[in-house]
Amino acid sequence: MDVAFVDAAAVERAFYEAFARLDLRRMSEVWADGAETVCIHPGGPLLQGKAVILDSWREILSGSVPPTLRHRAVQRFATGALAVHLVEETITTAGTSVPQTTRVLATNVYAYLGDSWRMLEHHASLPLGTRRAPQPSAPARVH
Amino acid sequence: MDVAFVDAAAVERAFYEAFARLDLRRMSEVWADGAETVCIHPGGPLLQGKAVILDSWREILSGSVPPTLRHRAVQRFATGALAVHLVEETITTAGTSVPQTTRVLATNVYAYLGDSWRMLEHHASLPLGTRRAPQPSAPARVH
Repeated sequence: MDVAFVDAAAVERAFYEAFARLDLRRMSEVWADGAETVCIHPGGPLLQGKAVILDSWREILSGSVPPTLRHRAVQRFATGALAVHLVEETITTAGTSVPQTTRVLATNVYAYLGDSWRMLEHHASLPLGTRRAPQPSAPARVH
Repeated sequence: MDVAFVDAAAVERAFYEAFARLDLRRMSEVWADGAETVCIHPGGPLLQGKAVILDSWREILSGSVPPTLRHRAVQRFATGALAVHLVEETITTAGTSVPQTTRVLATNVYAYLGDSWRMLEHHASLPLGTRRAPQPSAPARVH
């Protein structure tokens, strides 16, 4: 892996570029190698390890119509080699008859790993209020 | 605020103790002061600032029957003054006719703030597969 990212912000830009351009190779560059990486897609289970995580992104990025994607860091926590960004993502998909816009909240964790900053964690969730379909079986609030 | 936590693990224990014991005062000690703290409950919107976050916990902790709560850090990322724990929570509520168990994934961010470690972020989500099925035939609870 030759690409190096100079800071957490650079990893973040690359991550959302890869997502918006359906670019799996770019997505692969973003993530740290190894088994410690974790990814949770909205409503999804815990995915652990780069290989498993990239498999999930391969599926997501296989769509033929790139989404329109805006992202904005709402909060940032950082020390020298570790950074956490809470990001508000606005994703508009045009692959259906009517464009659908979804707002996602994502906690992204980045670390400097000796040669480059990489993504260690992406934990995304969908506020129920922004769900498109009615949710007759909406879960009880557990906390 | 006089209580000091010596490390991220101590904050984490206090957080889940407060949750399990419905102890709002303990919950208040856990969180960092200030507007930069963030909390996302499962399926919930972004809550910012300790006052708003504690209001949400006041509601959650107002239940009369404490939940049974297990928690396990699945992954930890840490540098000197910042720590991120991905925690699997298993919450069993006994307030209904049949105990309900829910598994929640939470990313918790802790920081050392000069006098103590505190919680800066709690981002929880509910994997769809663990959602409870709708129970249309269940009798409405009237009291």
